Amino acid sequence: MSSALLPVVEPIPFEPASQKYQTLRTSLLEKFAAAVPDALKLPRSIIHNPPVDVTAIPRECGILSAQEIDITENYDVTSLAQAIASKKFSAVAVATAFSKRAIIAHQLTCCLTEWFMREAVAQAEYLDDYLEKTGKPIGPLHGVPISVKLRISIAGHWSMAGTLDTLQKATKDSQLIAILRNAGAVFYCKTNQPQSLMHLESLSIWGRTLNPFNINLSSGGSTGGEAALIALRGSLFGLGTDIAGSVRAPAGYCGIFGFRPTSHVLPTKDFLLNVPGFAAELNIMGCVGPMSTTLRDMDLFMNVVMSANPSIQDPQLIPTPWTPRRLEKQPDGARLRIGFMMNDGVITPQPPVTRALTWVRSQLEKSGFFDIKDFVPFRAAEAMKNLNSAYWPDGGRTLKRHLAMTSEPMLPLTAWAIKDVENIDIGVAGVLEQRGKRDLFRYEFAEHWASQQVDIAICPVSVGPACMHDTTFYWNYTSFWNYVDCPGATIPTPIKACRKGTEYYGSEDQVPLSDECKHVRQLWAEGDFEGAPIAVQVISRRYHDDELFTALKTVNEVLERSTSSRR
Amino acid sequence: MSSALLPVVEPIPFEPASQKYQTLRTSLLEKFAAAVPDALKLPRSIIHNPPVDVTAIPRECGILSAQEIDITENYDVTSLAQAIASKKFSAVAVATAFSKRAIIAHQLTCCLTEWFMREAVAQAEYLDDYLEKTGKPIGPLHGVPISVKLRISIAGHWSMAGTLDTLQKATKDSQLIAILRNAGAVFYCKTNQPQSLMHLESLSIWGRTLNPFNINLSSGGSTGGEAALIALRGSLFGLGTDIAGSVRAPAGYCGIFGFRPTSHVLPTKDFLLNVPGFAAELNIMGCVGPMSTTLRDMDLFMNVVMSANPSIQDPQLIPTPWTPRRLEKQPDGARLRIGFMMNDGVITPQPPVTRALTWVRSQLEKSGFFDIKDFVPFRAAEAMKNLNSAYWPDGGRTLKRHLAMTSEPMLPLTAWAIKDVENIDIGVAGVLEQRGKRDLFRYEFAEHWASQQVDIAICPVSVGPACMHDTTFYWNYTSFWNYVDCPGATIPTPIKACRKGTEYYGSEDQVPLSDECKHVRQLWAEGDFEGAPIAVQVISRRYHDDELFTALKTVNEVLERSTSSRR
Repeated sequence: MSSALLPVVEPIPFEPASQKYQTLRTSLLEKFAAAVPDALKLPRSIIHNPPVDVTAIPRECGILSAQEIDITENYDVTSLAQAIASKKFSAVAVATAFSKRAIIAHQLTCCLTEWFMREAVAQAEYLDDYLEKTGKPIGPLHGVPISVKLRISIAGHWSMAGTLDTLQKATKDSQLIAILRNAGAVFYCKTNQPQSLMHLESLSIWGRTLNPFNINLSSGGSTGGEAALIALRGSLFGLGTDIAGSVRAPAGYCGIFGFRPTSHVLPTKDFLLNVPGFAAELNIMGCVGPMSTTLRDMDLFMNVVMSANPSIQDPQLIPTPWTPRRLEKQPDGARLRIGFMMNDGVITPQPPVTRALTWVRSQLEKSGFFDIKDFVPFRAAEAMKNLNSAYWPDGGRTLKRHLAMTSEPMLPLTAWAIKDVENIDIGVAGVLEQRGKRDLFRYEFAEHWASQQVDIAICPVSVGPACMHDTTFYWNYTSFWNYVDCPGATIPTPIKACRKGTEYYGSEDQVPLSDECKHVRQLWAEGDFEGAPIAVQVISRRYHDDELFTALKTVNEVLERSTSSRR
Repeated sequence: MSSALLPVVEPIPFEPASQKYQTLRTSLLEKFAAAVPDALKLPRSIIHNPPVDVTAIPRECGILSAQEIDITENYDVTSLAQAIASKKFSAVAVATAFSKRAIIAHQLTCCLTEWFMREAVAQAEYLDDYLEKTGKPIGPLHGVPISVKLRISIAGHWSMAGTLDTLQKATKDSQLIAILRNAGAVFYCKTNQPQSLMHLESLSIWGRTLNPFNINLSSGGSTGGEAALIALRGSLFGLGTDIAGSVRAPAGYCGIFGFRPTSHVLPTKDFLLNVPGFAAELNIMGCVGPMSTTLRDMDLFMNVVMSANPSIQDPQLIPTPWTPRRLEKQPDGARLRIGFMMNDGVITPQPPVTRALTWVRSQLEKSGFFDIKDFVPFRAAEAMKNLNSAYWPDGGRTLKRHLAMTSEPMLPLTAWAIKDVENIDIGVAGVLEQRGKRDLFRYEFAEHWASQQVDIAICPVSVGPACMHDTTFYWNYTSFWNYVDCPGATIPTPIKACRKGTEYYGSEDQVPLSDECKHVRQLWAEGDFEGAPIAVQVISRRYHDDELFTALKTVNEVLERSTSSRR
């Protein structure tokens, strides 16, 4: 490795497929490393001989001051914004603390693709001056550092879709970034995402993002850089995108909050200039979504974005008043109705997931606030089959053309994603047929939802805890909700996966539901998931994002109380 | 003509392209005629020697009683519903009156495809009984007859998309029909639409729908049956669909109110079972829209539909609270800002259209309620080019396949619609490219709208008054708004086209803007449009349908006052 590069923890060595690819990789990594001062580099001993769980290292490595540890560990966005507004901390101190912690997190998990502390501190200086002169914060996010997935454009920084030929320096902020910047947010890094953006892991030319709770596991994807960074508190708040689970899967894998709204609720305008959308989006829309350490921070974010009235600039957006309220209008004494879907009828989740769902269910039942019932799964196998075709209506040809433009080798999980439809171009008639199937499915699912008589559903985030690297094969529990376009959020639980061989499927789960289910059992038997956090997924009806947030708040309060009393 | 058929006015004889088509036509017309009693047939003298303007015939032909004339001429839906609820009229009397007037209108304009008075009267009897027994109307539309375009399914009646192979008897009400039926509406007829649904006229196997104000002109299309029927007061309220102007163009041609909402605001679920959507809808969504004789009836309709919360059953719909209000929140003293677009930069409208716009503008200016300005047109030629490709992504192949299934000959306006893209299948990549162009155009148009600093825009409904038959070639003034998906409504004016050769383009319009503009001038020189009513089109931002209605109300009040004082 060139000495001009920044060493990072790499349990699986990166194997470039060609010299050309390696040369490009080296050049990207050199550019990255050039901005990083030696004082922020971790000792080689940690890089070469890391513990399985690296979450304690940022605090213990000696690089952060006591105040920087306080800033990064004891606040969420909401309280940090208050602390900056009240001048307890300067914006510069906050930007410095998170920039430092982020570059430490990167060395442990390869979560970043760009790091620009100097610009962040300059922006923070401007904000400190502004507060000093006017006596008022510039906006509700004054001085709050926000991390951003590579594919979301920030002026002057690298952006990229799923292939290297789309790498470009953005000439302007995308609409969402501009809204957050106007509200006072400080940007300091871009985060890793996988090739094609269609893995639920995050291996790219920048490297493989690791799960900080167990580096032999993935941080998830495609917003895996954010998830690892936030789990290590190198960021309190990040932005990802989700067309199949790319916000919720990594949030779940890393035990943080993540939210995928209904499509056309949050602005995605100018995420990447001059790059055509995914062919997938002809029938399945991608969305942007927040990731955070607390639920109230997601709500703050939604308030900031919605009050900027983004639909005036982006007419694709539905003007959505953000006043979580529907549930508050329930008749007196009516309890929130929650349906639990323990499996989707195709894949029984691995044991710790079932344990977490069971725990959540029992806590909610005990609280007495809810009307708890079963939620019957709905034709998941059919949804998966239709999705597979809808995601790749041209059989992956556009993707391959993009890869070819820079001789970029196809990574194994990209090949896995397209394998069933490779080179099958369904044509205009096929896209229309997929549209018809999708709409009919959505109508019938709406009937099904109505028949369940629930306000929200709670289900797994994925088939297991964070997966062993290169084994996230099944997207069922997230992509189903993209197919029906229902908003969903992850809520972390205190449950963690145990040491290998100490936890088993329940007796009622003895018979695999399908070949995929059998494969998931095999992955469980082969893997060791110790320490992986487990979250659950909370879902509401399409466009009922405000209802979802009201429900999330109630559910989360009960779970937090239960978690504290458990400790 | 077989004596088993019901003769209708036919200024241009129907020329079937083949014996097979003629046989099918005869069989459809025989089925139609079988339900019509002799007492409701107009004298042959009228059918064979009709006046150019047939609007007085329903009243004067002697078929309707004095009460039936009162019921059909002196009420709108709102006041008729009150009259039925207060037992001034029975539902049976109302259903009978409109059924009779509708079949008279059909003989004059060929506006119907099915007529089922007996069923309507039976439904009305049930409603009268209900009111008698309970003392309360069954819903806000108790006993109100509603006419429905052929393509919208009503249980037990014929429905059809754009080709004969899709003709089917619906087994259940589509969602919208069910909502209206629950509210008390009575259904009594289905109305004519053109082959392919992609003409702005209405020539089908059932015949050619005529404009009642001048039978040498078209009633418009594709909801042309509704427009002619309502203009003759054979209906007070109808349902059409609009993907390029199919509600607004016929409403404008026949001088009634018509509304195309933003897509996904009104339910279209189950409009036609087991028939795939248009390929056009991959990028341009079709919508359902109301047509009526008064503005308040459209508002009543919107209230009835929205309060049924249709998005629960159809998750494609955006839950839209129907409380026209945005404009009411304007700062005190702020006036509604209206931009007038007198032409689109491609085609100068024919003289009476400019006269109507000028009249509307002067009335609104005189009222002092508005801030009136110019609205600069935006890249209409580019929009038309993109639309043409987006409407036919497979070059019309699917359409041709459907036509072939029953050896249905392609009509001239169908051939015109596809001529520039015939057999060019743009494929998945092309559909995606169209999506990208569309979205970018919408973003840029949103910027343009913001730069105009207006709340609403007023523009022509079409390039001229109702066209001579088979000459509606240019959809510019309606389909542009489908491209940017802005809601729009027609408001009739008291302006009518004058006798041939008495009206000229203004001196500022001497130079044609384009080849299309030249063609439109030629059509003006060749045609005689005497008596054709002229409406204007009122547009708001996408998803600001409630804002549009508030604006419509204010604008319409001023225009109605001006119209009365003009009389």
